[in-house]
Amino acid sequence: MTSTAQLDADIALALRLADAAGEAIRPHFRTVTAERKGDSTPVTLADTAAEEAMRAILRAEVPADTIIGEEFGSTAGTSRRSWVLDPIDGTAGFLAGRPLFGTLIALVVEGFPVLGVIDQPILGERWIGAIGRPTTLNGQPVRTRPCRELANATIATTGPHYFDDHEGAHFMALAAKTDHKRMVMGGDCYNYAMLATGQLDIVCEANLKLHDWAALVPVVEGAGGTMADWNGEPLHAGSDGHVLALGDPARLDDVVEALACGH
Amino acid sequence: MTSTAQLDADIALALRLADAAGEAIRPHFRTVTAERKGDSTPVTLADTAAEEAMRAILRAEVPADTIIGEEFGSTAGTSRRSWVLDPIDGTAGFLAGRPLFGTLIALVVEGFPVLGVIDQPILGERWIGAIGRPTTLNGQPVRTRPCRELANATIATTGPHYFDDHEGAHFMALAAKTDHKRMVMGGDCYNYAMLATGQLDIVCEANLKLHDWAALVPVVEGAGGTMADWNGEPLHAGSDGHVLALGDPARLDDVVEALACGH
Repeated sequence: MTSTAQLDADIALALRLADAAGEAIRPHFRTVTAERKGDSTPVTLADTAAEEAMRAILRAEVPADTIIGEEFGSTAGTSRRSWVLDPIDGTAGFLAGRPLFGTLIALVVEGFPVLGVIDQPILGERWIGAIGRPTTLNGQPVRTRPCRELANATIATTGPHYFDDHEGAHFMALAAKTDHKRMVMGGDCYNYAMLATGQLDIVCEANLKLHDWAALVPVVEGAGGTMADWNGEPLHAGSDGHVLALGDPARLDDVVEALACGH
Repeated sequence: MTSTAQLDADIALALRLADAAGEAIRPHFRTVTAERKGDSTPVTLADTAAEEAMRAILRAEVPADTIIGEEFGSTAGTSRRSWVLDPIDGTAGFLAGRPLFGTLIALVVEGFPVLGVIDQPILGERWIGAIGRPTTLNGQPVRTRPCRELANATIATTGPHYFDDHEGAHFMALAAKTDHKRMVMGGDCYNYAMLATGQLDIVCEANLKLHDWAALVPVVEGAGGTMADWNGEPLHAGSDGHVLALGDPARLDDVVEALACGH
């Protein structure tokens, strides 16, 4: 296959995964009895069922590819390709009845995400990002918005309880230089989707795992934005979980400088 | 009119207000250019247009009633009745593209909210609470859930940036005694709607104005929950803006005690 045909096939596969995850998730929304994992992260029947459904498709269709899932860990393949799955990003929000969680699906090739899907199966909103292509929301291209000054930026983060004290101080130093009256909390992956759609300027988070951020990179970058770690360095499979997304890449130096002040 | 017929008529009027607000709001969602008020609270064309639409209906249909609106202030009437309007509760979330904001409509009689509507015009979700009647979501009754122990409670608040340091310490003391791994931030009025629908156990906020909370009381209480200030006292028009909602009223003493530890 040409690389274009390969990417088309991979996108089509990713969409089948998202369809299957959505079918597994929807019956449980606002009806779940929450379970607990050892680390007390919320997890639901929906989470497990959705990842199982996606893994079954991948095993059948691309058995040589590695699968890395939030719920069931890694299944090593023989190709250079890894499918990285987070069936429900935003389980706390899901359990709180909010239709802002997302199914995250990424294809990572040699450490770099080349394809990402953010799917919100309750609202029927699906963002697709792929290297060299414009990001779409339900088939329509979306773009980030310009942000000429940090003081006018709207910033989002899922919550201060995901930062340790040190990280919190850095975040607050950044937030203080933005239009902090418009700061929004909560939202998980939906914040990155909204940034890609031109509704937010900065998302800043810590302690993200590969499955939390891999799908976001092609979505954000295909819409004109950029993602980086808190030092402004590109994200890669070994990144430390400190994640920035910017709608306007021209503000990256300002954001990194503001973050560094918080100590 | 009998009081039942009066309440039916008031509910029908409130629903016409919600319809008019939704029509005014929907065209602006994810398209607004934000303005600023003097206090930098986000406000949008949608906010203004929705309140104007609701005020026009009230002037025409119940000219004797007082109108208290978030955008245009108070217009005194001659009756004992006040319509309290917040066209977009959660303007920061609205501006961030989240369909969790709400139009809040309350009828307050002699200081007590007797009727409340929480309307989410993008998702088409409408909660109606009225004194002596079960709360409904799109016509179906909803109930809060029991919460036997504070340690199992899921708590929500819109964000720590809405607390001063003192309030934040009290909130954190309470949050620490809940199942804080499931704590959710953001959400505004949607948190109260989810509490009324049995998806959350506690909402705790500060600095709410009458228009922020009046509509929530009949919705929460008609679903089996309770609302109070941070001392556990009933809310009234002169309350200080410290607001608690509990799905299980039996936990009120525990919550007030936990809050009081934070100093």
